[in-house]
Amino acid sequence: MRAYRMTAWGAPPEHCEVAEPVPGPGQVLVRVAGCGLCRSDLTMRQMPRAAGERLGWRMPFTLGHETAGWLPDGTAVALVAATSCGTCRLCVRGLDNACPRGTTGRGYGADGGLADYVVADRRAVLTLGGLDPRHAGPLTDAGATAYHAVRRARPRIAPGGTAVVLGAGGLGAFAVQFLRILTGARVVAVDVDAHRRAYAESVGAHQATAELHERADAVLDFVGTDETIAAGLAAVRPGGAYGLVGSGGGRLDRQWFGTLPRDGEVFTFQGGSIADAQEVIALADAGLIRNQVREFPFERAAEAYESLAAGTLNGRAVVLL
Amino acid sequence: MRAYRMTAWGAPPEHCEVAEPVPGPGQVLVRVAGCGLCRSDLTMRQMPRAAGERLGWRMPFTLGHETAGWLPDGTAVALVAATSCGTCRLCVRGLDNACPRGTTGRGYGADGGLADYVVADRRAVLTLGGLDPRHAGPLTDAGATAYHAVRRARPRIAPGGTAVVLGAGGLGAFAVQFLRILTGARVVAVDVDAHRRAYAESVGAHQATAELHERADAVLDFVGTDETIAAGLAAVRPGGAYGLVGSGGGRLDRQWFGTLPRDGEVFTFQGGSIADAQEVIALADAGLIRNQVREFPFERAAEAYESLAAGTLNGRAVVLL
Amino acid sequence: MRAYRMTAWGAPPEHCEVAEPVPGPGQVLVRVAGCGLCRSDLTMRQMPRAAGERLGWRMPFTLGHETAGWLPDGTAVALVAATSCGTCRLCVRGLDNACPRGTTGRGYGADGGLADYVVADRRAVLTLGGLDPRHAGPLTDAGATAYHAVRRARPRIAPGGTAVVLGAGGLGAFAVQFLRILTGARVVAVDVDAHRRAYAESVGAHQATAELHERADAVLDFVGTDETIAAGLAAVRPGGAYGLVGSGGGRLDRQWFGTLPRDGEVFTFQGGSIADAQEVIALADAGLIRNQVREFPFERAAEAYESLAAGTLNGRAVVLL
Amino acid sequence: MRAYRMTAWGAPPEHCEVAEPVPGPGQVLVRVAGCGLCRSDLTMRQMPRAAGERLGWRMPFTLGHETAGWLPDGTAVALVAATSCGTCRLCVRGLDNACPRGTTGRGYGADGGLADYVVADRRAVLTLGGLDPRHAGPLTDAGATAYHAVRRARPRIAPGGTAVVLGAGGLGAFAVQFLRILTGARVVAVDVDAHRRAYAESVGAHQATAELHERADAVLDFVGTDETIAAGLAAVRPGGAYGLVGSGGGRLDRQWFGTLPRDGEVFTFQGGSIADAQEVIALADAGLIRNQVREFPFERAAEAYESLAAGTLNGRAVVLL
Repeated sequence: MRAYRMTAWGAPPEHCEVAEPVPGPGQVLVRVAGCGLCRSDLTMRQMPRAAGERLGWRMPFTLGHETAGWLPDGTAVALVAATSCGTCRLCVRGLDNACPRGTTGRGYGADGGLADYVVADRRAVLTLGGLDPRHAGPLTDAGATAYHAVRRARPRIAPGGTAVVLGAGGLGAFAVQFLRILTGARVVAVDVDAHRRAYAESVGAHQATAELHERADAVLDFVGTDETIAAGLAAVRPGGAYGLVGSGGGRLDRQWFGTLPRDGEVFTFQGGSIADAQEVIALADAGLIRNQVREFPFERAAEAYESLAAGTLNGRAVVLL
Repeated sequence: MRAYRMTAWGAPPEHCEVAEPVPGPGQVLVRVAGCGLCRSDLTMRQMPRAAGERLGWRMPFTLGHETAGWLPDGTAVALVAATSCGTCRLCVRGLDNACPRGTTGRGYGADGGLADYVVADRRAVLTLGGLDPRHAGPLTDAGATAYHAVRRARPRIAPGGTAVVLGAGGLGAFAVQFLRILTGARVVAVDVDAHRRAYAESVGAHQATAELHERADAVLDFVGTDETIAAGLAAVRPGGAYGLVGSGGGRLDRQWFGTLPRDGEVFTFQGGSIADAQEVIALADAGLIRNQVREFPFERAAEAYESLAAGTLNGRAVVLL
Repeated sequence: MRAYRMTAWGAPPEHCEVAEPVPGPGQVLVRVAGCGLCRSDLTMRQMPRAAGERLGWRMPFTLGHETAGWLPDGTAVALVAATSCGTCRLCVRGLDNACPRGTTGRGYGADGGLADYVVADRRAVLTLGGLDPRHAGPLTDAGATAYHAVRRARPRIAPGGTAVVLGAGGLGAFAVQFLRILTGARVVAVDVDAHRRAYAESVGAHQATAELHERADAVLDFVGTDETIAAGLAAVRPGGAYGLVGSGGGRLDRQWFGTLPRDGEVFTFQGGSIADAQEVIALADAGLIRNQVREFPFERAAEAYESLAAGTLNGRAVVLL
Repeated sequence: MRAYRMTAWGAPPEHCEVAEPVPGPGQVLVRVAGCGLCRSDLTMRQMPRAAGERLGWRMPFTLGHETAGWLPDGTAVALVAATSCGTCRLCVRGLDNACPRGTTGRGYGADGGLADYVVADRRAVLTLGGLDPRHAGPLTDAGATAYHAVRRARPRIAPGGTAVVLGAGGLGAFAVQFLRILTGARVVAVDVDAHRRAYAESVGAHQATAELHERADAVLDFVGTDETIAAGLAAVRPGGAYGLVGSGGGRLDRQWFGTLPRDGEVFTFQGGSIADAQEVIALADAGLIRNQVREFPFERAAEAYESLAAGTLNGRAVVLL
C-alpha cells in the first residue's frame, strides 16, 4: 500500500510502498480516508536519533496522527491522536493525555495515518456519526487540544465575561469556536496577521485585534513566546486562568508573586484526552463547530507540508488517501 | 408615593398612597422604573397570619421582588430579589440563596418594588450597564433562578449532549436560553401547551415537544408534579442531573435505588444567588439572552396579575412606575 | 483446580473441580490468595434464569468478585471488582463504575475468584505494594464502594462540620475511616446494633448512636430503607449531600420540594471505579485505613456465607485459597 | 486606651495612648484579648509614604491584623484579617481574599488589634466557640492563608499520594496540619532549619528533610525564592499542583512549556477568605489542629517583633492585651 514515511533520522519523509498492516489482538484495521497534517510533523525530521530512541521511536515509520477512515464494516471512524496505556492512574481518571506511556504513537515513532491502512487499539476508535472521515482527522488533535484548553479554563470564565485567544491559527480558531459555544463570554482573538484575524472573526470571535488591550477571565495562549506569556498573564483578572498551549519556548523574567494572576490558575499541557476528542466530534456532528480544511491529494503531501510551514492556510491541511 | 400593597392577611393587594421610605445606614434609595410580577406574589394573599408571622412578615407591606430603577445619581440598577444576611457560612461562600435569614424581604413581608421608591442594602444593588431598568427586574428572580438551575447542572451536561427543560413558561424559557449559550447541548423543551412550545423554540430550543421521549444529560423540571418528577428521572443518563425547580408538590412513588440516576445528581433549591443575578445581567447586557416582557401601567397592576394567573403571557409581566 | 460455583439457576453454590483457565490476549492469569464474600453473592442463588440471561450471565460460573492474589512473576495484585468496557464515554472519563457493559463480570455471570486461579484483563489488575493479597480483596469492592460515596460527598462536607454514616456494617465502617482521613469532619455512625456501634467507634467514629439526632453536612446511607431515607434527608443542612448506597428498597412518601436538602445534592450509585480502588489500596498500603477481615479456609466457604448472612461478622469474610 | 502604632512613614511603631474607637453603623466594638504578629508588620515601617498613600493608608494607625477578643456581651470572637467590600463580583462568590478594595484594613493603613479596643464590621466577626481569644488571632491570617493553599491544592492530591510543604515556619506548620486532616496524603516538610523540621514533625509531618527528593501531587511553597520555585515545579507530578504562598520574590529562568507541571495547576494568592477563617476556627475548636503560640505582654510588643524577625519562634507570637 501507499505510505508517506520517515525513513531515516534527520531525513525528510518519502513516498513509499509498504505491506498492509495486520491488526493484533484487540486491534482493528482502518482504511484511511484522510489524514490531517500537524506542525509537530515538521519537527520530526530534525529529531536526533538518540532523542528519538529515548522516546521509544523506531525508524522507519509512517507520518500522520490526525487520522480518520472506515472500519472493515464501513463505519466511519476517527482515531485518537495520542497513545496512552489505558491502565495507569492517569488513564483510569480520564487524564490519558498526560499518560507517561504516550511518547510513541501512530505517526510519531510508529506507523501513522498517511497510508492506505493503519491499525489501532479498539480504545482509540471514535465513531464519527454523520461526519466525513476525509476531513475529520484534525478534530482529534488540533480540535481536541484546543478543546482541552477551553475545558480547563471554563470554570474560571464568567458568563458575560471575556475570554482571549492569543494566536488565531488552526488551534486558536477551534478555541474561538468552543469558547463561543460553551462559555457565554465575549471572545477576543489576538493575532499579528490580518488574514488570521479575519478568519477568527469568521468563526465567531466578537473581536480580533493585533494587540491585547483588555482584562480577561481567561487567556489561552497558542503562541507561547516571552511576549505572549507576559502579555497574557498581565491581562488575567483575579481568579482567572492563563493556559499555555503553544510550544513557543517562552519564559517569564519577572517575580512570580504579584505577576501571576491573584488566586487564579496557570496551566499547560500537551494534547487532548479521549473524552475531549469524543466531545469535539459530538459538537462537530451536531453542526455546532466548523472544521475548516484544505484538501491535498496523497501524491502532493510534500506540498501540503510546505503550505503548512509557510503559515498560509486557513484551518487545517488534510491529505486524502 | 404610590404603592401596591398587601394590607391585611388573607386579603387581595390594594393601591395605596404611602410615605417615601428613608434609607438607613448602608442603604440606598431607589426610584423604581419597573417591577416584575411573580407567581409567588399570588400565593401571598392566601398566607395565613400565623405562618406569615412565623416567617417574620409584617403587615402591611408593598408587593414586588423583581425591582429595577435608578439610584439618586441616575445609575440604572436592579435589586437582588432574595434577602440574605451577608455574614453566615452560606453567604460568605456565595450560597446566599440558601441563607436561613432570607424568609422576609423586599416584596415578601417587607416593602417591595411596586411603588415609586424602595430602599435596599448596598449589597443588593446590581448595576445594569446599558439595560433598561423598566424591564430588568425579572432578570433578578425569574432569570437568576433559571440560571442557578443551569449552573448547577452544567458540569454534568456533555457538549454535544442533550439537556431537557420541563415546562416552558417564564423560567423555563430563560433556562432554554442559558443552556444554549453555556453548554453546547441540544436543548429540548417539553410543554403541554403549544403556545409555550412555540415560544421555547423562538428563544432557541432545538426542539419543543408535548412529551419527553429521549435520554438526557440533564433534566431541569420547572413544573415539579408527580408526573414530571417520574418522567424527568427516567430520562436522565448515568452521571447526569435532575434539577427540581418547580414547586408543584410532586412525589416519587418508587424505590430510590435503581430509579434515581446512577452516579448522577438530584438537586432542588429556591431562588438564585447574588452572583447568579450578576451573571444574568451581564449576559443580557451583552445581548446574549432575550428578556421578553409585557408592560402594564401601574394603575393596571391587578389586571397584570390576572394575566399572570391565567398563564397567557409570553415572558414576564412588568409593571411600570 | 478447586472452585466454588453456581452450577444451576436457583440452586446453591457447590465445591467443584474445574480446569485451570487460560488467559486470552491482553489478559493475565492470577493465582488467587484470598477472596472476599459479598452480600450480593447471596442473592445470586435467587436470580431467575430469564433475568440472569438478560444480564448476559452464563451458568455455571465461579463466585467471588473481591479477589486478590499473585501474577505469574509473584507480584501481589488485587482485581477490580466490577467489569467495564474501557472505551465508552463513561469509561474514558473515569466513570467506569457506571459502564453499561458491567452487568456480567468475574463472580457474577462469569468465573470469579473463589478458585485457585482466575483470569483478568490487564486493565483490571491493581498492584498491592506491601499489602497481603490474602486479605486485600474486600478493598476493591466494599472498600471502593464506600470510598466512592465519600468522594462524591466530600466537596459538600465542611472541615470542622459533621458527616453521618447510616449503617455501620462492612461498608459503613470503611466509610467512617475514609471520612476521618479525608474531611476533617466530626463523624457520627448510626446503627441499631450495639456491636456494630462499638465497631464503628473502634475504627474512628467520634460518636456512635442508635438514632440520628443532629444536622449534618452529609449523610451516607448504607441501609436504604424508607426510614433511613427520610431521616437522612431531614438531617442534611442546606448545601449538603445525601448519598444512598444501601439497596434497602426504600422510598420517600413526601413532597420533594421542601424535603430534599436545599441547594444540596442527592446521589446514588453502584460500586466504585478503578480509580477508587487504586486510592483505597494506596490508603491501606500507607497504613491509613484498617481492613478488618475474618479468614475462612476454602473448604468452609459455605459456613463463611452463613456468617455473612447472619450479620455476625465485624469487617469482611475472606476465603483463603 | 493603649495602642501600639505606626506614627510616621518610615519610623518604627510606638506605644501610645489614644481614645477608644466608636463603632459606626453596622459595626461592633471588640475588647481585644490578644493579637498575633505577622512578618508583614515588619515591612510596614519601610513603606514609602507615596506607596502607602496610593494604597489608601492613613498615618498614624495601630498595628495588628490577627485580632481576637470579646464583643460587649462577652462573646469570644476573632476578626477577619483582610478587609473586603462584601459587594463586588469576587466577594459575592466567596473570593473575598482577592477583593480589590482590600488594600487598607485593620492593622495596615487603619487601626488594628494591638490596642485595648478595635472596631469591625459585623461581616468580619467570627465566633470562637470554646477557643481562647487570647490565642485565636493567628488562626485568621497565618491559619487561613495556609488553609487557603491547602484548599486550592486539595482536589489534585490523591489520597495515598504525597504533599510537600516548602518552609516549615508558622504558615507551613499550619499547612502540614491541614494536609494531614484533609487529604490522606503522605506529608513531607522541607526546611533548611533543623529546629523547624523538628517542629513540622511534631505537628504531624510524616517526614521532614532539608532537601526535596521526591515527586508529589502538590507542592505548597511558603518560601518563594528562585530555588524553591524551581525545585517545587520539578517535583510536581502530571496533573498536580504548585502553590506559591511565600513572597520571596522568586523567578523561574526556564521555558514554561515542558517545565510547568503537565496538565497540572500553578497558583498564587494573598491571604485567606472569610470562609477559610471560619473553617480554620471550626477545626481548631474541634481540637483537630494545634495553634501553637508564644505569649508576650503588651508592653513587650517590640521584643515580640524582634523574636519574629530573628526567626527563633515556634508557632506564632501573640501580644496579650
